[in-house]
Amino acid sequence: MTRVILTLCYDGTDFHGWQIQSNAVTVQGELMTALKKIFGSPVPVAGCSRTDAGVHAKTFVCHADIPSPFPLERLPLALNALLPAGIAVQSAKAAPEGFHARFSCKGKTYCYRVYNARLRDPFQVHRAYFFPRPLDAERMHLAAQGYVGKHDFAAFAATGSVVEDTVRTIYGFSVERKGDLIEFKVTGNGFLYNMVRIMVGTLISREMGKLTLEIPEILKRGDRTLAGITVPPQGLYLERVYYTEID
Amino acid sequence: MTRVILTLCYDGTDFHGWQIQSNAVTVQGELMTALKKIFGSPVPVAGCSRTDAGVHAKTFVCHADIPSPFPLERLPLALNALLPAGIAVQSAKAAPEGFHARFSCKGKTYCYRVYNARLRDPFQVHRAYFFPRPLDAERMHLAAQGYVGKHDFAAFAATGSVVEDTVRTIYGFSVERKGDLIEFKVTGNGFLYNMVRIMVGTLISREMGKLTLEIPEILKRGDRTLAGITVPPQGLYLERVYYTEID
Repeated sequence: MTRVILTLCYDGTDFHGWQIQSNAVTVQGELMTALKKIFGSPVPVAGCSRTDAGVHAKTFVCHADIPSPFPLERLPLALNALLPAGIAVQSAKAAPEGFHARFSCKGKTYCYRVYNARLRDPFQVHRAYFFPRPLDAERMHLAAQGYVGKHDFAAFAATGSVVEDTVRTIYGFSVERKGDLIEFKVTGNGFLYNMVRIMVGTLISREMGKLTLEIPEILKRGDRTLAGITVPPQGLYLERVYYTEID
Repeated sequence: MTRVILTLCYDGTDFHGWQIQSNAVTVQGELMTALKKIFGSPVPVAGCSRTDAGVHAKTFVCHADIPSPFPLERLPLALNALLPAGIAVQSAKAAPEGFHARFSCKGKTYCYRVYNARLRDPFQVHRAYFFPRPLDAERMHLAAQGYVGKHDFAAFAATGSVVEDTVRTIYGFSVERKGDLIEFKVTGNGFLYNMVRIMVGTLISREMGKLTLEIPEILKRGDRTLAGITVPPQGLYLERVYYTEID
């Protein structure tokens, strides 16, 4: 048995997220089906995180424990020939001793895209959140600096999610306008369920005048009802996954 | 009755082309349904051209004969509220005397996008033609200059299409690489059925060594079997439509 690191890219539009489900098409499910065809027996696969239905990944890392040798440089093309076109395996390499796609992960960068123009762009429907009222990217960028640092993010987790420890470290948060698109980029050592979507939604709710509390105050109060909306999944992209320390 | 010029943009992925059909979702069909809801009676609509299933339009022009006055500056938002997200009306203005979206049209610019890299990009599946073998954009650009001018394009029309006059004028044809994407842009006074897709396919077939004839020779012989493949619809975009003379 050899542990292999696979790097993927996927358009989440046609998938019910990463995690395998018995009655829905998922990225992990499709990948395991393809691996089983190649190796003739089930191949266990573990991902760096779960992504929700409709969420995209520019880079997603998982490991697969393959039961027999295979020339790894040829594994991406072999898998891509079997996978739906919405998923592409970009690389395969042998995992170092003790590597685990989820537990070895030191951090991630997510990008959230908002299409902010008066009229919608049909080509952005599944690729960005269409928000027609004007947003000030610079003002959101300034407000977002309140997220940076080590904080208890309990106010920014989906209600009902059960996690013991809600402390996470955000290394950076930038908001930048590129024409009609606004890109929110956030890097952290880990994220609670829906955390990125609530962090972005809170910046937008503040812009709309629906929230007056500053981010540090919301963090301190730890109350989900004080934060903003959960923006929809189609704007969210997992961009990078880190396996060495981030400074 | 007032003739109104509507400018649209649409992602062709979810539509069976422009033209209304009784048993398929089309752009014209959706637009006419939305117009009927606003005006309470059927509104005749004529487009600048037909587009096939899967073909996109960055700009598509049509005219609609509305039965009662409507503030035209508000018509795009009113229509967009009723249309599927894959279609957006960008503008509405009163048509000049004698205007017809198809018959007044002086020319069009199409763009064809090829994703030319070893591994597919899941985000380009419905937006470009994935062609993994290397293509030389500069060499195709040079070859494509053979299309420019007034020629009989009989060799570049889908077999079975019935058109009396197969002479068209191509004003310009450029092929440019932008990273892993190759953009073919062609402007002409009119195009035969599948003409752009066969012109691009012929450049690609030549690159693959499947065709040795130069473009002028294929034009002269007028035989469809001497031209190349018909590349698939998802790479094709109607980019601009001209209603004044092109020089």
